[in-house]
Amino acid sequence: MVYGTSLVCNGFLDVADNYIMRSDTLLIPGPIELSDNVQKALDCPSLSHTGPEFTAIFQRVLQNCRKLFKAHETEGQPIVLAGSGTLGWDIAAANLIDPDEKVLVLSTGFFGDSFADCLELYGAKVDKLAAPMGEQVPLEEVEKALKRNRYKAITVTHVDTSTAVLTDVEAVAELAHRIAPDTLIIVDGVCSIGCEEFKFDEWGIDYCLTASQKAVGAPPGLSISMISSRALNQVAARPRSYFASLRKWIPIMQSYESGKGAYFATPAIQLINSLDVALKEILADSLESRWAKHRQTSDWLKDKLVNTLKLKLVTNSKQAAHGLTAVYVEEPGRLISYLKQNGVVIAGGIHKPIASKYVRIGHMGVSACREELHHITRCYDLISDELGRP
Amino acid sequence: MVYGTSLVCNGFLDVADNYIMRSDTLLIPGPIELSDNVQKALDCPSLSHTGPEFTAIFQRVLQNCRKLFKAHETEGQPIVLAGSGTLGWDIAAANLIDPDEKVLVLSTGFFGDSFADCLELYGAKVDKLAAPMGEQVPLEEVEKALKRNRYKAITVTHVDTSTAVLTDVEAVAELAHRIAPDTLIIVDGVCSIGCEEFKFDEWGIDYCLTASQKAVGAPPGLSISMISSRALNQVAARPRSYFASLRKWIPIMQSYESGKGAYFATPAIQLINSLDVALKEILADSLESRWAKHRQTSDWLKDKLVNTLKLKLVTNSKQAAHGLTAVYVEEPGRLISYLKQNGVVIAGGIHKPIASKYVRIGHMGVSACREELHHITRCYDLISDELGRP
Repeated sequence: MVYGTSLVCNGFLDVADNYIMRSDTLLIPGPIELSDNVQKALDCPSLSHTGPEFTAIFQRVLQNCRKLFKAHETEGQPIVLAGSGTLGWDIAAANLIDPDEKVLVLSTGFFGDSFADCLELYGAKVDKLAAPMGEQVPLEEVEKALKRNRYKAITVTHVDTSTAVLTDVEAVAELAHRIAPDTLIIVDGVCSIGCEEFKFDEWGIDYCLTASQKAVGAPPGLSISMISSRALNQVAARPRSYFASLRKWIPIMQSYESGKGAYFATPAIQLINSLDVALKEILADSLESRWAKHRQTSDWLKDKLVNTLKLKLVTNSKQAAHGLTAVYVEEPGRLISYLKQNGVVIAGGIHKPIASKYVRIGHMGVSACREELHHITRCYDLISDELGRP
Repeated sequence: MVYGTSLVCNGFLDVADNYIMRSDTLLIPGPIELSDNVQKALDCPSLSHTGPEFTAIFQRVLQNCRKLFKAHETEGQPIVLAGSGTLGWDIAAANLIDPDEKVLVLSTGFFGDSFADCLELYGAKVDKLAAPMGEQVPLEEVEKALKRNRYKAITVTHVDTSTAVLTDVEAVAELAHRIAPDTLIIVDGVCSIGCEEFKFDEWGIDYCLTASQKAVGAPPGLSISMISSRALNQVAARPRSYFASLRKWIPIMQSYESGKGAYFATPAIQLINSLDVALKEILADSLESRWAKHRQTSDWLKDKLVNTLKLKLVTNSKQAAHGLTAVYVEEPGRLISYLKQNGVVIAGGIHKPIASKYVRIGHMGVSACREELHHITRCYDLISDELGRP
């Protein structure tokens, strides 16, 4: 971390700490490195939240969110709120599930478990199918469960950031539509939207939540989600959250998307301006090519870690996420410290059964797509150095 | 609104819209104009949310929040979450009031009414005392209500942004402590913290919520609040919100404040860096002098509107907020348009019974404290021009 000198000094305040000119390369699985354009767009005056300038920005953001999710241009509704990814769980639990309704939760790690906790807090009866370590829940188990019980919804964590397990959402959705056509399909796409193949409409998803600070490439502080027409028709008449109430927010989002300001709670103006740039960057190329770039970077790193450094991934290779890598190492703390000393920040483990035994390396957004930054090759070289292997 | 040319152009993207170099003077009652230092601090790379650099910033923010609220340095807990002011209502309702517990709500406008709606959504039995238009709820009525019923909590909107009514929180708190010593005192300080006299400890407040984008002078997107030790001891064992759960957040806030990173949901890194500068600016001078500056600016404007332009304020003069002015005008839409054409943005009415009959002018933060910017004098001159009076 190198602090710049204060860009603007009023002679009284010590704000030099707050002007962070250049920082370590951030390769945790979110927040991720911002592009220059995305970061610069934060440096924006506050605008009237219902005025024409901000409304034009927010309208474009909502329209582009449909493209990000590959969702219908006129049906359903994208939702962008001040909050974090976690808030999306509350939106699902408080609006789409009534107390005592049954939900089937597919858990592939810490985040699947936590989503189940959130649903239970709001009164859902949760059946949780926990995957074997590093794998997705076997489809046969999902099929059995869907045949045994009637569920209001099934939830899938597309990528569990704690284990780097990628679940085949398309296959789960196909199964659910076939066996339990009335069951809503809810996807936690916090660590997948923007880096993994995802098709809201084509797969028949009902609600997908994500956050700004992962593969979307924007700063943290926004909950981003997409709801289907089918789910909109089932939004609870009495939601059990005020701040996360879709009854309150849907008309507001519809209004902004149609180009008219509206008010329920004040949106995060600067973050939305920055998200606007992040979405423009994503959509300047095809989503397919962005997914492919993430796959290439991920495949390269995983191959080197496994085949050159002889390390073991947390994740079964066919079910591995492309936006991060979770890998067992003997001394995670020592490795993380060595990289930090050399200006690269990676993350430790957080899935409880194995938390002290592995590290997580994020490779999303510019770090995955722009090879010329050498983020991932440099990270790999440092890991290789520290482990003292060739 | 003058858009700058793109500061950083990658040759492919049209992001010129997102580099807003100079905007209208924003004199709505929040979001407000940012100081240069506060805005510049947004232009900050993403940092690891649990790393030492961000932890140092968040620690200082939490410590300075205690000073902002005039709260004890070690007791209770400040809380800063990604969200908006509204989220503070959910925090109070979902953590401090159990279903069917009685709450006395003092309402002085749209925001008091909405706080009551939020409490009812979470199951509270609300007795609402609605104030006469433009006045606070008479203390005798509060006294009677507190004598007649046992309440888990009383809520007060310090300044209702819809009517500009300032309630004497000190007097209400004194009454509650005397008559109903077990009743928690909850204050909505969204439009008061940073511009109105407020003493969390001295007045014996149990929970006070505010937001970043009003008199705190930071960008929108953060819920900021302070809870007392007494209220902490009464936090529900089973909160009814996941994202707003104090059981989840309090240990996280304690950890950051003690200088150690922790995780429940990802904080809004850049907004918190910007808030850090806003709090440093506020605390560089005394809060007392900041409150006095807001009073002076407010008194000047109200005097001119009433005594020179012969307009009628929405608010009884003794109960008028110092961070905004609500004033009846014949044609609010025409006045707002004229000011907008001249680069000044003010707000329309939102309190339903009188919404089409008045305008609201915000004078918080730099617009109130830095006379050399001429924000308020220019705004007044434009109003005077438009009304065609001397």
